[in-house]
Amino acid sequence: MSGRRPHGPNAPPASRASHASHAPDLSGDTGAGADGEQVGSALAEFRAFRERMNREILDEGNLVINRFFNLDGRAYEAGALDVKTKELLGLVASLVLRCDDCVTYHLVRCKEEGVTRAEVFETMSVGLIVGGSIAIPHLRRAVARWTELEQLGEGDAR
Amino acid sequence: MSGRRPHGPNAPPASRASHASHAPDLSGDTGAGADGEQVGSALAEFRAFRERMNREILDEGNLVINRFFNLDGRAYEAGALDVKTKELLGLVASLVLRCDDCVTYHLVRCKEEGVTRAEVFETMSVGLIVGGSIAIPHLRRAVARWTELEQLGEGDAR
Amino acid sequence: MSGRRPHGPNAPPASRASHASHAPDLSGDTGAGADGEQVGSALAEFRAFRERMNREILDEGNLVINRFFNLDGRAYEAGALDVKTKELLGLVASLVLRCDDCVTYHLVRCKEEGVTRAEVFETMSVGLIVGGSIAIPHLRRAVARWTELEQLGEGDAR
Amino acid sequence: MSGRRPHGPNAPPASRASHASHAPDLSGDTGAGADGEQVGSALAEFRAFRERMNREILDEGNLVINRFFNLDGRAYEAGALDVKTKELLGLVASLVLRCDDCVTYHLVRCKEEGVTRAEVFETMSVGLIVGGSIAIPHLRRAVARWTELEQLGEGDAR
Amino acid sequence: MSGRRPHGPNAPPASRASHASHAPDLSGDTGAGADGEQVGSALAEFRAFRERMNREILDEGNLVINRFFNLDGRAYEAGALDVKTKELLGLVASLVLRCDDCVTYHLVRCKEEGVTRAEVFETMSVGLIVGGSIAIPHLRRAVARWTELEQLGEGDAR
Amino acid sequence: MSGRRPHGPNAPPASRASHASHAPDLSGDTGAGADGEQVGSALAEFRAFRERMNREILDEGNLVINRFFNLDGRAYEAGALDVKTKELLGLVASLVLRCDDCVTYHLVRCKEEGVTRAEVFETMSVGLIVGGSIAIPHLRRAVARWTELEQLGEGDAR
Repeated sequence: MSGRRPHGPNAPPASRASHASHAPDLSGDTGAGADGEQVGSALAEFRAFRERMNREILDEGNLVINRFFNLDGRAYEAGALDVKTKELLGLVASLVLRCDDCVTYHLVRCKEEGVTRAEVFETMSVGLIVGGSIAIPHLRRAVARWTELEQLGEGDAR
Repeated sequence: MSGRRPHGPNAPPASRASHASHAPDLSGDTGAGADGEQVGSALAEFRAFRERMNREILDEGNLVINRFFNLDGRAYEAGALDVKTKELLGLVASLVLRCDDCVTYHLVRCKEEGVTRAEVFETMSVGLIVGGSIAIPHLRRAVARWTELEQLGEGDAR
Repeated sequence: MSGRRPHGPNAPPASRASHASHAPDLSGDTGAGADGEQVGSALAEFRAFRERMNREILDEGNLVINRFFNLDGRAYEAGALDVKTKELLGLVASLVLRCDDCVTYHLVRCKEEGVTRAEVFETMSVGLIVGGSIAIPHLRRAVARWTELEQLGEGDAR
Repeated sequence: MSGRRPHGPNAPPASRASHASHAPDLSGDTGAGADGEQVGSALAEFRAFRERMNREILDEGNLVINRFFNLDGRAYEAGALDVKTKELLGLVASLVLRCDDCVTYHLVRCKEEGVTRAEVFETMSVGLIVGGSIAIPHLRRAVARWTELEQLGEGDAR
Repeated sequence: MSGRRPHGPNAPPASRASHASHAPDLSGDTGAGADGEQVGSALAEFRAFRERMNREILDEGNLVINRFFNLDGRAYEAGALDVKTKELLGLVASLVLRCDDCVTYHLVRCKEEGVTRAEVFETMSVGLIVGGSIAIPHLRRAVARWTELEQLGEGDAR
Repeated sequence: MSGRRPHGPNAPPASRASHASHAPDLSGDTGAGADGEQVGSALAEFRAFRERMNREILDEGNLVINRFFNLDGRAYEAGALDVKTKELLGLVASLVLRCDDCVTYHLVRCKEEGVTRAEVFETMSVGLIVGGSIAIPHLRRAVARWTELEQLGEGDAR
């Protein structure tokens, strides 16, 4: 996270994985037989939208928006809590607020931080109990996304 | 709903209609002239995603998630209230919480329980007043889905 | 509901029970030993705020607000569905949206329509599953309110 | 807005721009090099769904729904506040409630009312601060939509 | 708002009116006959809680929280839109998100900026249509608060 | 968590700290000079309401509700993640969903699990960024509650 440029879940990813856009066709197309390449290009497509729009937003130069994007990145940096715990916090908050894009972003970050599948499921089980059955469609898409990330090499997820 | 396997709005449907996934392309493609086959295959595609993900989720063996899925099914079983009334409750709750997938699932179940078009519209009118204009885009998609179900034979909806 | 004056869950109640305001002290004060009179005066206090504010709002003469209040009343009138079913719909929608005042109002209306305690609990069980544990504090207050209504004579609830 | 037919953000647009349906493929496909024609046909497709469904809904003749659609239109008419200000109110409310379709509708209306890009960004910056990072994916899609509208001639947006 | 200290809707008010805490007893006690002094002391009590807690929060020195508080203030400063319009945006966003404290804060700010009663009602009518009947209890409390502010001299509101 | 009786954030606490009810007078009354006894009795009062209502709810014998209460407790038990992390997840989910009672419950549990003030603030900073300024009034009450818990001996918090 070098430099002072906006970063975080919603800022233009440099060396970190991208926050996939709210891409509808991601919802149902992760076939059991989907090969890694197909999966990778789907994530790549969403990352592309996310990066392009972040750039367009930041280039507008709205002070409040740009500072918020920067702050959004800082919220997940290590402090009293480590990065992994903070990503789990971001994941459960995104799930109960039912934001697929935000869930995808934090799943990508969790993968990078070495979170295990069991840890992801437990985090989401808390979100399911807190948020109720209304969270289930988002849970399905989240699990599809996580499985997709497991099929990719970690480096490809970026 | 024989046996003890997880069921309900978000569990793997066996003999009951499936909970269509939050599939984006369902939003606008229900042409007035859409023939039953096209409609059926769209619903089939979403059911496929829903069933596949439910299976993947339940196979993970997370106790809390699996029990919740089971409990989710029980909530709509007959008791002091009949099944039809409970499905209407599920429908209005899904509409005000703006969950398209959940709305689709309960519409399918309502169709199976013999709910009429007028009853569906009245239920959704309560949801519209309670939830406000923010519910209108979801109302549009719900009506498109209901009309789609009417065009199918009831058996095909499963 | 004679005449054309605004009515409904949020309109000035004439002969119907009032929609108690979001009154904080209702939350925890329903002692097991609370006598009917204390309970009645608490409900009376909230009805008073609700009625006074409805009058002040309607007297302002804002066309959109006044028509919405009127429409809000019509949404619960008998049609393809009976009044009792519509009140249950209003109750579950209010619970999942976590609005204590709205829950209180629909509980009062349910009591007037002869809904049983078991029916209220089943309706709220659907809301609990759909909305998750975040609805539990509202469930507690709803049950306290319902027990309160049972302790009152139906006539006193108005 | 002549006549008495239902209008507003969610009613069948006659001479005004349409409220694009919640169309998933709009999310990510606004290529930097997208020409106006492609953009226009995408908006046209969504308008078509919106108009068709509004017609189907209104033709059902549900009194509460039809009156609500009418009232929804009146809420944005000039009064103590001018139309432009009201559209900005509708925009920020739609953003914090995270309704992409509603955001799209109000962006189209803002464009018609001569709102500038800077005004749109400032309105959305308020929504971002109030609603938090969970609003960012919606902000991205909103900016993509606004840029799309700028690329169209105003007349084509209808 | 001189200097660089955190300000805004949720920061310690210096010379500006305070953001009353979510104080339950404000809900129903604004009697028609309430004299200014009673009203003033109620607002004063809530301001006291708000200011004390803001101080305690900021003194903790959490970088993300402190910067967010600062940014929250900047979002309402004049730019492409004037301060009055931005306060109306904050008001409608707060109403549809059903945050009584936030509504109270923006009403106080609106009063300071010379917003009229009719403008406040029109802003809230948009929020009511967008947010639905679930917003009505909040509307009642908002109107009670606004009337309270009118009874106070503007200077006393601080 | 001995026995099979319902437990968890919303179940009757036996040996664990209670989930204070959504008690309005807790909002603003934590005077800087409040002595421990006053604080303790406030928490005791809320625990009393919570426990009494949980008992009344569970005694009703609604299968779905009772099982959900049980499941709610299991969600926070140690597994792939430890109890402390799960309580932080519950805290941030409660904050972004803006449920004061739920926040209070998880703060009490965090105190029991040895979570530090800095960890609580960092967890809430994530919730603030995700949820936006609308969460600030809840943040204020959460900090007041946490400080209250620090003033109590851990044993007294139960």
